[in-house]
Amino acid sequence: MKLSPSIEALIEALRCLPGVGPKSAQRMTLHLLERERQGAQNLADALIAALDKVARCGRCRNFTELPVCELCSDAKRDQGLLCIVETPGDVMALEHSGSYRGLYHVLLGHLSPIDGIGPEEIGLDILETRFAAEAIQEVILATNPTVEGEATAYYIAQRAKAAGIAVSRIAHGVPLGGELEYIDASTLAHALSGRRSVADD
Amino acid sequence: MKLSPSIEALIEALRCLPGVGPKSAQRMTLHLLERERQGAQNLADALIAALDKVARCGRCRNFTELPVCELCSDAKRDQGLLCIVETPGDVMALEHSGSYRGLYHVLLGHLSPIDGIGPEEIGLDILETRFAAEAIQEVILATNPTVEGEATAYYIAQRAKAAGIAVSRIAHGVPLGGELEYIDASTLAHALSGRRSVADD
Repeated sequence: MKLSPSIEALIEALRCLPGVGPKSAQRMTLHLLERERQGAQNLADALIAALDKVARCGRCRNFTELPVCELCSDAKRDQGLLCIVETPGDVMALEHSGSYRGLYHVLLGHLSPIDGIGPEEIGLDILETRFAAEAIQEVILATNPTVEGEATAYYIAQRAKAAGIAVSRIAHGVPLGGELEYIDASTLAHALSGRRSVADD
Repeated sequence: MKLSPSIEALIEALRCLPGVGPKSAQRMTLHLLERERQGAQNLADALIAALDKVARCGRCRNFTELPVCELCSDAKRDQGLLCIVETPGDVMALEHSGSYRGLYHVLLGHLSPIDGIGPEEIGLDILETRFAAEAIQEVILATNPTVEGEATAYYIAQRAKAAGIAVSRIAHGVPLGGELEYIDASTLAHALSGRRSVADD
């Protein structure tokens, strides 16, 4: 069937969104044109504004509209704690948990020599500058528990130790609400090897 | 957590897409900013172009960029057959099936007195003008098999008969590849009541 070219173009453009295949893209296009023309206009405006304004924080590499992001310039946060994460989404998740009050450093990726991603590509040179320039007492490694994430954590741990900074890794184990029966073997192995002695009351 | 305002605005704007909740909207936003800036720009352009160009066909009310759509102005299509559907998506599905070569009329909705949607809101006045002006021999009712879709079909059938036009309804029954065991009761009732005698060979 011959569709109108601008409908075809919109269906195709929507497919750059993660999890959107040809069927969803068509459904979204028709929904926008039938019932959400105002929403479509808002979306176009929001996309253009975000592309224009959002860049990387000069200090932690998180997304921000400012030269240095809100988190980095918040003097109330613990300047001695630095949590290393892979993506801005990880920062959002940690902030949402409400249990961390230190600073962040966003790698925007992980070491992956096979894809040509070395220390420079994920800004580890910038991180080492921070190790030297800031009063960091502890580095918390919160990269993902994948092969690449672990390798990245190991690499950063070596550099932080060389700079005389204490290093820790977030705990991996059984998630709260998780049932032992349904947890995968690697997580269980982590949960066992990372067990903690129960203090006497 | 305080997000950058234009990131918040983009997350909010993406939620006008069907099936996109707060979590998916956040994931889409971060994906676009991290890896798909070109795609985001294309999407904004495509949205603006579609909003600007796509309007309704003056004859069948389908989406088009032309005053009269490609389907209506295709002289090779059977001008005596008129298929009535609820949405432009239904036209796409029927065209995709490749088994219909007549014209369409898109209601863009169905009769729903409870929501204040009467015959005029879904353009049945335009449809009656077509009944009078065109050489339609048969009207095929392909509204959805819901209460409102059936009521709409019934209403249109009355008008078409009054205009001396033959009326048919698409068949409802067991879909191909469907297993009887898993088909709902209403569909089975339709399949039974709509049974056809098997001709002798």
